[in-house]
Amino acid sequence: MGCAPMGHILYDEVMRYNPKNPYWFNRDRFVLSAGHGCMLQYALLHLAGYDSVQEDDLKNFRQWGSKTPGHPENFETPGIEVTTGPLGQGMANAVGLALAEKHLAARYNKPDNDIVDHYTYVILGDGCQMEGIANEASSLAGHLGLGKLIAFYDDNHISIDGDTEIAFTENVDKRFEGLGWHVIWVKNGNTGYDDIRAAIKEAKAVTDKPTLIRVTTTIGFGSPNKANSYSVHGSALGAKEVDATRKNLGWPYEPFHVPEDVKKHWSRHVAEGATLEAEWNAKFAEYEKKYPEEAAEFKSISSGQLPAGWEKALPTYTPESPAEATRNLSQTCLNALAKTLPGLLGGSADLASSNMTLLKMFGDFQKDTPEERNVRFGVREHGMGAICNGIALHSPGLIPYCATFFVFTDYMRAAIRISALCEAGVIYVMTHDSIGLGEDGPTHQPIEHLASFRAMPNILMLRPADGNETAGAYKVAVANRKRPSILALSRQKLPHLAGTSIDGVEKGAYIISDNSSGNKPDVILIGTGSELEIAAKAAEELRKGGKAVRVVSFVSWELFDEQSDAYKESVLPAAVSARVSIEAGSTFGWEKIVGSKGKAIGIDRFGASAPAGKIYKEFGITAEAVITAAKEVC
Amino acid sequence: MGCAPMGHILYDEVMRYNPKNPYWFNRDRFVLSAGHGCMLQYALLHLAGYDSVQEDDLKNFRQWGSKTPGHPENFETPGIEVTTGPLGQGMANAVGLALAEKHLAARYNKPDNDIVDHYTYVILGDGCQMEGIANEASSLAGHLGLGKLIAFYDDNHISIDGDTEIAFTENVDKRFEGLGWHVIWVKNGNTGYDDIRAAIKEAKAVTDKPTLIRVTTTIGFGSPNKANSYSVHGSALGAKEVDATRKNLGWPYEPFHVPEDVKKHWSRHVAEGATLEAEWNAKFAEYEKKYPEEAAEFKSISSGQLPAGWEKALPTYTPESPAEATRNLSQTCLNALAKTLPGLLGGSADLASSNMTLLKMFGDFQKDTPEERNVRFGVREHGMGAICNGIALHSPGLIPYCATFFVFTDYMRAAIRISALCEAGVIYVMTHDSIGLGEDGPTHQPIEHLASFRAMPNILMLRPADGNETAGAYKVAVANRKRPSILALSRQKLPHLAGTSIDGVEKGAYIISDNSSGNKPDVILIGTGSELEIAAKAAEELRKGGKAVRVVSFVSWELFDEQSDAYKESVLPAAVSARVSIEAGSTFGWEKIVGSKGKAIGIDRFGASAPAGKIYKEFGITAEAVITAAKEVC
Repeated sequence: MGCAPMGHILYDEVMRYNPKNPYWFNRDRFVLSAGHGCMLQYALLHLAGYDSVQEDDLKNFRQWGSKTPGHPENFETPGIEVTTGPLGQGMANAVGLALAEKHLAARYNKPDNDIVDHYTYVILGDGCQMEGIANEASSLAGHLGLGKLIAFYDDNHISIDGDTEIAFTENVDKRFEGLGWHVIWVKNGNTGYDDIRAAIKEAKAVTDKPTLIRVTTTIGFGSPNKANSYSVHGSALGAKEVDATRKNLGWPYEPFHVPEDVKKHWSRHVAEGATLEAEWNAKFAEYEKKYPEEAAEFKSISSGQLPAGWEKALPTYTPESPAEATRNLSQTCLNALAKTLPGLLGGSADLASSNMTLLKMFGDFQKDTPEERNVRFGVREHGMGAICNGIALHSPGLIPYCATFFVFTDYMRAAIRISALCEAGVIYVMTHDSIGLGEDGPTHQPIEHLASFRAMPNILMLRPADGNETAGAYKVAVANRKRPSILALSRQKLPHLAGTSIDGVEKGAYIISDNSSGNKPDVILIGTGSELEIAAKAAEELRKGGKAVRVVSFVSWELFDEQSDAYKESVLPAAVSARVSIEAGSTFGWEKIVGSKGKAIGIDRFGASAPAGKIYKEFGITAEAVITAAKEVC
Repeated sequence: MGCAPMGHILYDEVMRYNPKNPYWFNRDRFVLSAGHGCMLQYALLHLAGYDSVQEDDLKNFRQWGSKTPGHPENFETPGIEVTTGPLGQGMANAVGLALAEKHLAARYNKPDNDIVDHYTYVILGDGCQMEGIANEASSLAGHLGLGKLIAFYDDNHISIDGDTEIAFTENVDKRFEGLGWHVIWVKNGNTGYDDIRAAIKEAKAVTDKPTLIRVTTTIGFGSPNKANSYSVHGSALGAKEVDATRKNLGWPYEPFHVPEDVKKHWSRHVAEGATLEAEWNAKFAEYEKKYPEEAAEFKSISSGQLPAGWEKALPTYTPESPAEATRNLSQTCLNALAKTLPGLLGGSADLASSNMTLLKMFGDFQKDTPEERNVRFGVREHGMGAICNGIALHSPGLIPYCATFFVFTDYMRAAIRISALCEAGVIYVMTHDSIGLGEDGPTHQPIEHLASFRAMPNILMLRPADGNETAGAYKVAVANRKRPSILALSRQKLPHLAGTSIDGVEKGAYIISDNSSGNKPDVILIGTGSELEIAAKAAEELRKGGKAVRVVSFVSWELFDEQSDAYKESVLPAAVSARVSIEAGSTFGWEKIVGSKGKAIGIDRFGASAPAGKIYKEFGITAEAVITAAKEVC
């Protein structure tokens, strides 16, 4: 209730949107980072005329199947831009939305026609302010000078545990000034409507910096007994206090009743929104006439329709191609795709030269060069992930990628999970994907990470083994616009293996070699990524000893799960229980693939600091180990 | 090399330590948060006379089995306090170390005898500064007024991708002033020894605030061709440039040669350290004489020897005890243990009243009440975890616990992983552990989290079902001082089940009821946490139908893995393949337990916003589903 004035002014006076087309490209974006206050946003969407939130939806708040879940979810409720609730995420999403606007404006606007021109507004609370992710994203927003990002800090001095005095006494204004923001303080946010209006005007006038408007409010404003208390933070007021609040605020109406004069006042937004969109459509028609090439590109980005045949840009390899680390092969794919996919942009958390993520034909996206496509995220993994969620949800054809060492997905896991939940097709380029990174040691060597993402819903965990599989992983990642992909890539050089293919990757698991007949090998060797080579070597040896051996690349468990039973049986016949898997990571979960009679070779301890070859040998991730295990099971 | 002056001054002039006893209680603590520069610390430990780093260890930098891994690891190298490398962690560890010092000093020092009195020093770089975790921890350090924390910010303007200008242009000084720190700038950190000395003196004089000393340095200082370049960030100089650097710095000696005058200069630290410890020992002997009770408590904390019989404080329950959420049962355990364990302290990330973590007999640890044991971490999960690592590694008898919703382990996963790696016995109290939290919806409902931690090395993932099991989980968590524990606890009320026990929990999995004979049940039903009740209900029904049914509580996979084969066979006989598991989380990994002929009931999608009972029903987490599955498998 303390945020009601800000929300009211934004939706009723300031923001440009079309309630009947929540996806109109040039709408202002609004993010409620303090997502637990979502009833306010649902009410505003309802008043503004969005079809997604009807009176019944408001009555079914937080109920099964309703459009009004406990936190705002873009995939449930048109009009909600992103998915918030986990604190700080929304602030970083907003930075991503504003970054996308600045980028597209710089690329497509013309002196006579600015088709990209909107603001991004975000409301965040004390909780968001305490989260590290919000500081990371705010620091980058200041660095990039995102002048059309306007953040309202609902400074109500209350979080769940009580007064923020118990844990949060920093000077937020000073911190944001340090971060390069313009800061405004509205002292009376409960009733100071004109002050809020003036602050927004001032914020818009500052075009080279994002603005933080600190709005001092009273939580639960209007409630005579519970205002300014932690008891209203995440809980309902209760019937008695609701009555008291109604009396206190002079609101004589029944629950959910919208008085006629209020309805009438808000009703103009449907017509106004239609006009705004129609005007923009006319503007875009002009643009299309004058700049047909740019318009075609822009339409691909704004519609999500990828250019036909984009996948033909992907390279293919033969076993004769020179050995290469999959991180380098990934860079080849990224650079090939960037030429054909106008919406591909991204970068690394200060590891571009290790992650191999630079797009060579583009420069750096900086404050004064926002048309470029290499984003320098800094050492801010968590912010990077959430910013990419914002970019992906800005326009369906924007394809953000971001990169760090695979082990540091731990820093950004909350953002990756939201990618999966909110259906943001972010591509996570995660290099140095095992003990194969060597000397940096156990702090940098992922072990349980593959398993941890295989267990996460709606995400694709891909671990390609060579050039063709890396290309296949990119084909899958780009095609999946509503499901994020994680590519686990090697630091070390790997050979191109016979039998690998882009098509194979799309099936999740497939046979790369087999000297058996009748779908009855003596043993099936299964590998992923850098260990597929080891499985192939072991197979050669075993075949020399007369065994019928199948080698299966298991690049993505999720994709294999989606195949038909017949296909699954053709790769892993139920009758063949002699199975050995090898992967330089936790064996957790592998019983599903190798069965209780099979063997899973992996690493169920932390890594070590030493040259990669030495660690592989000491940890028993070797062809010899596969051969021994194979002999044991068949 | 840019940090060498700071390191030299700290180890040679400022810090109080005893090289021959790296664990002397009252030593100053030093943390190299910029852990990739660890060769500097190894060299300083070697010069200072620590036995852990010999000349051979320096020569075997980053090699298999050496004491000098690629990043500093406390569990490998005595003299290293914590494990750093993942950026920002060390800064938060240092906050934990300083917080522990302030707490113990307030509890145990007497006007005539201050047995706790040391500083905590930390060196952090640009990378650490960009990480959100560092801002979280720094904000809390400012709030708590940790005056004996002195941070050196190695301001070298270079990170891996090049000049920090590309991503990091904020005003760090201003941000830290906003965070409540005292800030000093040393303009010439390469050779300004006296300026560094003066800054440390000034920092010590400011007792109510932590101090940030920004030291502007040149990365790779002394290298004529590579100084001030990103190429020296994580890479060696190369033989040629090493030679050039030697010439440039006027250093005529062979590699690894320490000239006699340098040796002689540093040799005094062994004798000085012994004296420092002897003086402190004499002081403590006085203390013990005068304050025997406090001394006994203090010794428990400083030695890690827990009071005999501490586990007797844990409550037990019968099926007649009133139903209770395990988060509430957890609070009962915490409060019971706090009376007997002097080193137990902790708190929540602004969810104390939801996580139920308040110790009722103590007040809040605040700037002016640091003797209290309820820590208010604020909404700073990542910082909280790493601060707890620092507390745990300060003294073996400090037992930090910290809390948030289970799903938000995603925010702090990097810190939890370091707990596991660095052998910090932190207790993670993670409530709201499933869809059972209800209306908050999928952003707040963990799904894959149990699996993701079961796959992590050296950590105990415990999911107790009721009162006895919650007590058992705490017994395990407290006893495991070199392995962190995560307790997944319910929001919803759960009955106390017949057959549960503390002893059972210690075995990881155990039979709670069985109407079979000869270790040959028709079917084994397996549950964890809130679903054990469902398994028990299904068993009752199946038994009515004449089946011999065993119910197994699978509270910790790791503990069960450690049992003898005979015990495992007694719980899960190989001959019984009819097994059904039920858990309100991902089924990933359950094939290991139920086998390929069994069935795992779980949730392999995101949750939903609705009352808990409704979601359980819609997702099929029900006794009916267990009964149906049981009939299918047996």
